[in-house]
Amino acid sequence: MNGAKRGASRATTIIDIAKVAGVSKSTVSLVLKDSPLVKPGTRQRVNQAIEQLGYVYNRSAASLRTSKSSFVGMVISDLMNPFFAELAVGIEDELNDFGFVPILANTNENVDRQARVLQSLLEHGVAGVIMSPANGTDAWTLAATLPRSLPVVLTMRRVEGSPLPYVGPDNRTGACRAVRHLIGLGHRRIAFIGGFGTMTTQSERLSGYFDALQEAGLQRDETLIFDAAPTRNGGMDAAARALAHSGRPTAAFCFNDIVAIGVTRAIALRGLRVGADIAVIGFDDVVGAEHNLPPLTTVSADTRLMGARAARGLLGLIEGADPATASFTGETRLVIRESCGAQQETIGGTT
Amino acid sequence: MNGAKRGASRATTIIDIAKVAGVSKSTVSLVLKDSPLVKPGTRQRVNQAIEQLGYVYNRSAASLRTSKSSFVGMVISDLMNPFFAELAVGIEDELNDFGFVPILANTNENVDRQARVLQSLLEHGVAGVIMSPANGTDAWTLAATLPRSLPVVLTMRRVEGSPLPYVGPDNRTGACRAVRHLIGLGHRRIAFIGGFGTMTTQSERLSGYFDALQEAGLQRDETLIFDAAPTRNGGMDAAARALAHSGRPTAAFCFNDIVAIGVTRAIALRGLRVGADIAVIGFDDVVGAEHNLPPLTTVSADTRLMGARAARGLLGLIEGADPATASFTGETRLVIRESCGAQQETIGGTT
Repeated sequence: MNGAKRGASRATTIIDIAKVAGVSKSTVSLVLKDSPLVKPGTRQRVNQAIEQLGYVYNRSAASLRTSKSSFVGMVISDLMNPFFAELAVGIEDELNDFGFVPILANTNENVDRQARVLQSLLEHGVAGVIMSPANGTDAWTLAATLPRSLPVVLTMRRVEGSPLPYVGPDNRTGACRAVRHLIGLGHRRIAFIGGFGTMTTQSERLSGYFDALQEAGLQRDETLIFDAAPTRNGGMDAAARALAHSGRPTAAFCFNDIVAIGVTRAIALRGLRVGADIAVIGFDDVVGAEHNLPPLTTVSADTRLMGARAARGLLGLIEGADPATASFTGETRLVIRESCGAQQETIGGTT
Repeated sequence: MNGAKRGASRATTIIDIAKVAGVSKSTVSLVLKDSPLVKPGTRQRVNQAIEQLGYVYNRSAASLRTSKSSFVGMVISDLMNPFFAELAVGIEDELNDFGFVPILANTNENVDRQARVLQSLLEHGVAGVIMSPANGTDAWTLAATLPRSLPVVLTMRRVEGSPLPYVGPDNRTGACRAVRHLIGLGHRRIAFIGGFGTMTTQSERLSGYFDALQEAGLQRDETLIFDAAPTRNGGMDAAARALAHSGRPTAAFCFNDIVAIGVTRAIALRGLRVGADIAVIGFDDVVGAEHNLPPLTTVSADTRLMGARAARGLLGLIEGADPATASFTGETRLVIRESCGAQQETIGGTT
């Protein structure tokens, strides 16, 4: 057992704590291990003594014995996308309630960095990991990196062939809903903008886009699919290509909101009106979607709730639940604002 | 020494690695401790064997002996503000280059949550901490929580009375530059919008605002200072109050970019033109500033570089450098876009 007193000369020991709390050394030890054997009143006295003496429990030492950690790793692929920050906040809120300390590591879509991050989380003995895999992650590498004993939940991006539990929105139905709305507004040439074919999220959303076209008896036109980095600049670049298309689309369904924000910006820069001249719909409903000019119509999967579900799934695994129970597919809903042109009069007010 | 083989039945030991690499057990041990005593070729052979056998180094065990960790904690106060995500990416890029794994913990401006996060980082023996303190953090509590031996750099927010090294932009000069620009464009009634008086960042930026007014011989008007949460909604609410003011301001200098984005939105919703009717300037130059409609004029402190400087300061402390050398005040520059009205013709193109 080991402790470090806050800025003092001699390290506080559990003997000191036991004296102050008026309990035995082993009772202090039980409290430190979160044992259910200690009565609430006693636990409170010990914790007060710990507080008073400024004792820091050395969990590195403890985790060797108990293999328990308060850390839960959240491994995300792109911290610059506000969507992931919102997801992380949803995860955090849930984990905090259960006494875990969520720590976030950003892989920046780099599989090598992801491998180092996972390795380091394992070395520090985290209690579990929630990860949104970097683009290019394969099931085999993931299985080879993560010990089977470690509770892991994948979120937002499936890894084909991986048996790990997965929490994410119903991308296909959500995308179908958005494109159906555009068709209902009279659009026939609808672009799909953003993401890459290697991303499972793109193929799921693209499937929904095709579903809606098929429902309406519209022909697929592969030239209306514009791959691009899932970023604001990716959206701007792809929009420039879409606007230069000989059969220019009258509407764009975007891979995500930051792509859609870039698309609306590119349209405005050309003196065209988003909504009136070209309809735009995003996906995610990030906080910035509502504050975009014009406010973005988008598919919400209730990001924070999704984060909370991933966290609850992981907490279940930590407690030994069947991995099958940790998976969850979230319903989506279309949030109609101004960028789709359904509310023309509102758009008029801002120009 | 302890290891866990990836998904296999028996744990790999350093003896297995030594056999495969054709070296002694103690050489493997030296490699695991990153000792400079091992020749590069030997190190490579050992690392290949580690890779091949899927050995996971148990750093919890190791950190008891060496007190070294690959984790560096980044404690930030508001993950929902894209500014902090960008700062974290700047920190990460630098730390990754030096073999550290940056992990991020969000306190959500909650000092109790901050205390738990710091406690947990200490328990896991992180190599150091870079923190942007939650609003309300006091020097005494900080000193009582953090052992003196732990390398810590404060960033973006000073804690009055704390001797800890601090890395941040020159808020006062940056704010003065922005307000001077508004005065140069002919504005006399300039609002200051966002933040609270308890935030050192607000008082620094407010000082710069006052400096510019004084320079120009303009009277302070305390009724033009609108405190508000440093968020988009905070900006929207405060803008509503500013626009209802009997002596309505013709320009607004905002606490940060997300406040400014909320302010531009509130102005547009009332049918007024940002730039032409009311000039708006933000602070931070987050990625979304450029993509705002109209694009935000803002004060850049080069956030990623600032993150890199904080990281370099911390790396110095970890290596035993004098804490005084870790502090850094960054120069700011005014990025003139369209929201300040200096480029009216460009704004015209989007309406």
